[in-house]
Amino acid sequence: MARTRLTPERESELYAAVLDLLREVGYDALTMDAVAARTHSSKATLYRQWGSKPELVVRALRHNKPVSFAEIDTGSLRGDFHALVSRTDDCQMKKDSELLRGLSHAVHGNPDLLQALRELLIEPEMTGLGTVLRRAVDRGEVPADHPALKYVPHMVVGAIAARELVEDRFVDQEFLFDYVDSVVLPALGVCSPRVPASPRTRVPDSPSP
Amino acid sequence: MARTRLTPERESELYAAVLDLLREVGYDALTMDAVAARTHSSKATLYRQWGSKPELVVRALRHNKPVSFAEIDTGSLRGDFHALVSRTDDCQMKKDSELLRGLSHAVHGNPDLLQALRELLIEPEMTGLGTVLRRAVDRGEVPADHPALKYVPHMVVGAIAARELVEDRFVDQEFLFDYVDSVVLPALGVCSPRVPASPRTRVPDSPSP
Repeated sequence: MARTRLTPERESELYAAVLDLLREVGYDALTMDAVAARTHSSKATLYRQWGSKPELVVRALRHNKPVSFAEIDTGSLRGDFHALVSRTDDCQMKKDSELLRGLSHAVHGNPDLLQALRELLIEPEMTGLGTVLRRAVDRGEVPADHPALKYVPHMVVGAIAARELVEDRFVDQEFLFDYVDSVVLPALGVCSPRVPASPRTRVPDSPSP
Repeated sequence: MARTRLTPERESELYAAVLDLLREVGYDALTMDAVAARTHSSKATLYRQWGSKPELVVRALRHNKPVSFAEIDTGSLRGDFHALVSRTDDCQMKKDSELLRGLSHAVHGNPDLLQALRELLIEPEMTGLGTVLRRAVDRGEVPADHPALKYVPHMVVGAIAARELVEDRFVDQEFLFDYVDSVVLPALGVCSPRVPASPRTRVPDSPSP
């Protein structure tokens, strides 16, 4: 697909319009006609550039997350995780959560959307996360055979999904900073300010809760 | 609500029929008429016993999970978690996952269903999980102020949600046993056979992956 005919500014404009429409009407009711009308472009252009509605929608979402995991390299795993959380402010996280909630609904009846979501959003994030973790292994922060390494995606997805299901709230930076320090780093055996140096430390004199 | 007019056997039969219908037609298409016809009962009886479709559906799901967290008490946190996983075989986990996937779709348009799901399924499980964790604190396995304690629900929900989203597979016992040993126990600082005694152990002589 030739994407070169659109300037980056025009592409951003189009993606922003797609996300606005998604929030307004949801995935199922979003049509290429509506995108064309909103952005004063032709449907032919849209189809030539993006091929299909699922791909356009997922590219718009992906464009919304311009900093990838792999571009972050602070020199420590904790630093990398905190940089990841910092890249998106609370307002944007809420907007993203609302979009993803709407999409997770639509995904059930739309295999093309699920595939595009996987290829364009989930897999690159997993690859980026893998890069961040591999650097931690190379630095000696985490043993290469640490059994929790392969479950970091589950811990991260769980934080987001469970906050909605269990707490009925969207994630925000404060929650994610604390979750990284309280769960993800300790599970990987990485020193965290939240947990005493020896995680098996007992506190026998403290009162029971 | 007087529930005493039905024998436990009859109640089980009714719940089984509701779950069969849920799998066959999904939540939205499931009607009280269909349940009445399938179970040779009157709609009046169904409404008298359960009040509403969301409550009937969630009670049927809950009935499907007869062993609650709180009834499990093996004497160690690892034993309790493994007993929890063992109570449901892989075939049943797949069936449950399919049901919950269908319900999580329906939940978006049905606040009554979401509320029933919360009250009858999510909150009792969270309370039971809290009991299991409190016993671990009382035994001295986990410090009462351990920062990961409040995130155990997120870790558990994450395992289930991410397996579907990231791996496109349903959870099974093998996965959950390994996840408990690799993530949940180490995050809580509890000794696990998967992780060396000191989680910060380096393996300098092992090859990089």
